[in-house]
Amino acid sequence: MATEKEQWGKGSSQTQVQTHKRSYSIRPRTQNNDYKNNYCNRSTGMTPSAQRTKRDSRRNTPVRIIPLGGLNEIGKNMTVFECCNDMFILDCGLAFPDMDMPGVDLVIPNFSYVEANKERLRGIVITHGHEDHIGGLVYFLKKVNVPVYGTRMTIGLIKRKLEEHGILKQCKLVEVEPRKTVRMGCMAVEFINVNHSIPGAVGMAIHTPAGILVHTGDFKVDFSPIDGEIIDLARFGELGSRGVLALMADSTNAEQGGFTKSERTIGDSFEKLFKRAEGKRIIIATFSSNVHRVQQIIDQAQHYDRKVAVFGRSMVHVMETAQELGYLKVPKDMIIDIEDMERYPDEKIVLITTGSQGEPLSALTRMAMNSHKKVSITPNDFIIISAKPIPGNEKYVTRVVNELMKTGAEVIYESMYEVHVSGHACQEELKLIHALTKPKFFIPMHGEYKHLVKHAEIAKSMGMPEENILIASIGDVIETNGQTMRIVSQVPAGRVMVDGLGVGDVGSIVLRDRKHLAQDGLIIVVIAIDRMANAIVSGPDIISRGFVYVRESEELMEEAREILNKTLSRCSNHDLKEWGTLKTKLRDVLSDFIYEKTKRSPMILPIIMKI
Amino acid sequence: MATEKEQWGKGSSQTQVQTHKRSYSIRPRTQNNDYKNNYCNRSTGMTPSAQRTKRDSRRNTPVRIIPLGGLNEIGKNMTVFECCNDMFILDCGLAFPDMDMPGVDLVIPNFSYVEANKERLRGIVITHGHEDHIGGLVYFLKKVNVPVYGTRMTIGLIKRKLEEHGILKQCKLVEVEPRKTVRMGCMAVEFINVNHSIPGAVGMAIHTPAGILVHTGDFKVDFSPIDGEIIDLARFGELGSRGVLALMADSTNAEQGGFTKSERTIGDSFEKLFKRAEGKRIIIATFSSNVHRVQQIIDQAQHYDRKVAVFGRSMVHVMETAQELGYLKVPKDMIIDIEDMERYPDEKIVLITTGSQGEPLSALTRMAMNSHKKVSITPNDFIIISAKPIPGNEKYVTRVVNELMKTGAEVIYESMYEVHVSGHACQEELKLIHALTKPKFFIPMHGEYKHLVKHAEIAKSMGMPEENILIASIGDVIETNGQTMRIVSQVPAGRVMVDGLGVGDVGSIVLRDRKHLAQDGLIIVVIAIDRMANAIVSGPDIISRGFVYVRESEELMEEAREILNKTLSRCSNHDLKEWGTLKTKLRDVLSDFIYEKTKRSPMILPIIMKI
Repeated sequence: MATEKEQWGKGSSQTQVQTHKRSYSIRPRTQNNDYKNNYCNRSTGMTPSAQRTKRDSRRNTPVRIIPLGGLNEIGKNMTVFECCNDMFILDCGLAFPDMDMPGVDLVIPNFSYVEANKERLRGIVITHGHEDHIGGLVYFLKKVNVPVYGTRMTIGLIKRKLEEHGILKQCKLVEVEPRKTVRMGCMAVEFINVNHSIPGAVGMAIHTPAGILVHTGDFKVDFSPIDGEIIDLARFGELGSRGVLALMADSTNAEQGGFTKSERTIGDSFEKLFKRAEGKRIIIATFSSNVHRVQQIIDQAQHYDRKVAVFGRSMVHVMETAQELGYLKVPKDMIIDIEDMERYPDEKIVLITTGSQGEPLSALTRMAMNSHKKVSITPNDFIIISAKPIPGNEKYVTRVVNELMKTGAEVIYESMYEVHVSGHACQEELKLIHALTKPKFFIPMHGEYKHLVKHAEIAKSMGMPEENILIASIGDVIETNGQTMRIVSQVPAGRVMVDGLGVGDVGSIVLRDRKHLAQDGLIIVVIAIDRMANAIVSGPDIISRGFVYVRESEELMEEAREILNKTLSRCSNHDLKEWGTLKTKLRDVLSDFIYEKTKRSPMILPIIMKI
Repeated sequence: MATEKEQWGKGSSQTQVQTHKRSYSIRPRTQNNDYKNNYCNRSTGMTPSAQRTKRDSRRNTPVRIIPLGGLNEIGKNMTVFECCNDMFILDCGLAFPDMDMPGVDLVIPNFSYVEANKERLRGIVITHGHEDHIGGLVYFLKKVNVPVYGTRMTIGLIKRKLEEHGILKQCKLVEVEPRKTVRMGCMAVEFINVNHSIPGAVGMAIHTPAGILVHTGDFKVDFSPIDGEIIDLARFGELGSRGVLALMADSTNAEQGGFTKSERTIGDSFEKLFKRAEGKRIIIATFSSNVHRVQQIIDQAQHYDRKVAVFGRSMVHVMETAQELGYLKVPKDMIIDIEDMERYPDEKIVLITTGSQGEPLSALTRMAMNSHKKVSITPNDFIIISAKPIPGNEKYVTRVVNELMKTGAEVIYESMYEVHVSGHACQEELKLIHALTKPKFFIPMHGEYKHLVKHAEIAKSMGMPEENILIASIGDVIETNGQTMRIVSQVPAGRVMVDGLGVGDVGSIVLRDRKHLAQDGLIIVVIAIDRMANAIVSGPDIISRGFVYVRESEELMEEAREILNKTLSRCSNHDLKEWGTLKTKLRDVLSDFIYEKTKRSPMILPIIMKI
């Protein structure tokens, strides 16, 4: 891993880190000028038509923006920027599988376009260390090894992931501070501090020959953040004054009116709850990456003189990383080993754990189901679930809450107490960024289609012309020359499913079969045919799984066997040679019979053994 | 079907309908007296201990309350009441399958306790016509045929269901008006009007030898209901004054503070939205059973001179029933046939449809996916989803909203506009019912465990002693003699899964297999063994489904076959006789190999054909 300074020293021909105060005048004509005024001044005295011709001649080298994930979906954020012979990637995330992807572990973007153009790829910049922004990296770097740039916290988290996958040594990770810039060939990427539910989050200003593009990354506006680092509104404003060609901004909370509350409000809630929990053991589940949330728990634990035990692999890892890098401040001797918990009374313990989404294998779920090896929930537990269920997880979380409550423990969760705030900007915060950056064009990012539409409406309500707003899809090639912005073509894009060690070997056919099997199970019919005599020498045997409880359905199975026997007995020797036709015939006969009797359609699998 | 009057005339020995003004003095000592005072008056001048002895001697004939559904879950509401030789059921609902029940169509309560005691069963009273209160009836009545009592609307909906299942003729349905009473042997059930998201909803006062039990059913308090029938608060208050032994009340919204808004507020929203939709076709999706919602759509359609087309089987059915029974008032010639829609311009049409939960097969989803035969969504459509996603359906609804928006249509849904109100009481309404009925004991009903706990807390906050609150589970036998209330035993209870025509034939083993198959698919290994020679004559053949895309994994499969061959070659003739052991050996070898290569655990099914 190269640090920023080393990088400077090396003076790589294609990428380098600079402070933004240095001159990197890729696009001198917008210097210190409002973007729109810039054109107006130049065009004084001309007729509209002449203006247009003049402007056309002033078109800049085109830049292309190619989202490969994070549009019309939540997750697997990844966007490609390219100009001339240079290309870089912004974020490389994963998504969690949807209900229509049974058995799939995670989903990553289809990288094939970048792979095919890897000689042009200058590097990857990462906005922050959440899985939906860094989770695809290991899969990408195994194919194309380029430098990765991020803030200290982000790089710290990526480092650990690459280590786990055994590829840390061959990868180049570069730490970049906010307000510093990374060169990517003819483009330059400036890091701008933002607030989010993880430390070290940044937005990016991408300085290109066509103009400045601003990408917020995931962000919120927190005027009292735990680390004191308020989002760099001034820099967004400066860029706006210089002229922003296009804004790409987080749409996750575009449906929510108002302002997202400060992370600090959770500290106030914790304070009250710690008081209420006097004499009890406190268990708090939250997102491991929310270091500021964890910091506030630590602060309360210190105040109430409690020891802290940490559960869940990712919680342990992130807390270690955050402590190492100075993002998390933990008093000496506060953290105790899980094994030592029993040496302290309940009222002296805070247990921080993963599982706030009710994930079936998480520490909290195992505690709730009484299957955790080291922690049993008792009526003397005070449990806080400091998170909100991600859409799709509601039922899992409810189940965990119910089970925890049944033990007699007190359980505090989002719908009854303010124990969580979002990490994403609500409508008024979005408006603030639009007002500061004053972009010519706007591309809503990060959200389902409905969020993108809502964000577009917000931009429109602030006076942006509809034709300057572009709701894109992944794979769209958006081209801008500083004057216009439009979708000019498409590249391959989509979801690549990761299941166990397999990347991309589960496709639509496999998923269709899995869903079919899940719905009604399967029936296997086996017969053995003597290939010389063309005669059936064994079977038909029927085996079913996931269809009916076999012992109680012997009659049905017996009838099915008879029907198959009848069908086979009608087959001539010739028919028995045509195995494909025979299989289809057996499948159809059995399928009709089963549907008539049960109104179910299990998968039917005829197998013919040749002897 | 017998109407109420016929029922009167027949004078059934065990059940009869009476107005509550008639005397049915099952429990004369509480007449017109506050329940608690009643005891106090009688015990004047005695020492506490003597009082206790005296009281004990005054214990009444015990009554048993046995919930068979609707506790620790949302759905399949069903409660049994029994006293001496009499028993009746309150509600008989279904639940929709959870994420851990793939392929299951619906879930009904385990009826076995009632079946085993059917000679004591006097009838079934139904609070209202929602599926989670009537959906189990057809399955129950096929086993035990007893009279069913409900309000006109409820009976109308049940009638249609029984007709569909072809059992209407042999069933006895009795219409009962609010404030009337049905005799159930030594108990009597009085119907009390409540507000809810379906017309004809009632709570019940159950007059028993042990005292009065009040069951609210699903309810809310609506001071401006569409049909003008405000919940009968006066009657709840009268019962409270006479003395209520136990209250059983709806806990669905116990987590929500304040008051549920009136259904009428939706009319105001519709008015604004119809105005905004000028010139466009309006499509509204809502719950078919929410007749008052539909009425408000009809009213707006009339005001704006639009014709109404109705989509979705259940919507058509409920609207027909509601119109027939006078619950829904539709101007003549307003409803048009779907086929005739094209004869009218967009701005003259309102389309009412099912699918507000994003159900994959519903009319709205098919329109969104552009697979509806008769309706294509265009940018000139104004679509209102007048419902809230039921927990677990969020992702389905979001998908439909996204797809509808992609066509360019305007889509209005709950999180952006007030187009839905709940049908369940929030905290202040719950308190109102507690305040009116002043029960001695309280059993929170209808809700997940967390809702029951919250409702118990509300009761406690109003001064009810903790020991008088009973959070029960399905199958608990709750016994009360007017003095005490406690769980005395358990009866069988649980979920019976309905899949196609099968009722109860899908159990935990079948579900476990379905889930396993869904996760990683399956691999089948077939070998044929000559049973005389104990030699393998064919195979091993490997077939997989839902595991990997076979064409791209030939190498893996080839390796697997080799490993199986190696294992088989090591088997002696004797080994080949022990088929059970042989199967286990093949399964283990293959399972280890596959896991090592892919980190997946498909179901492995060795099949041995004997020749």
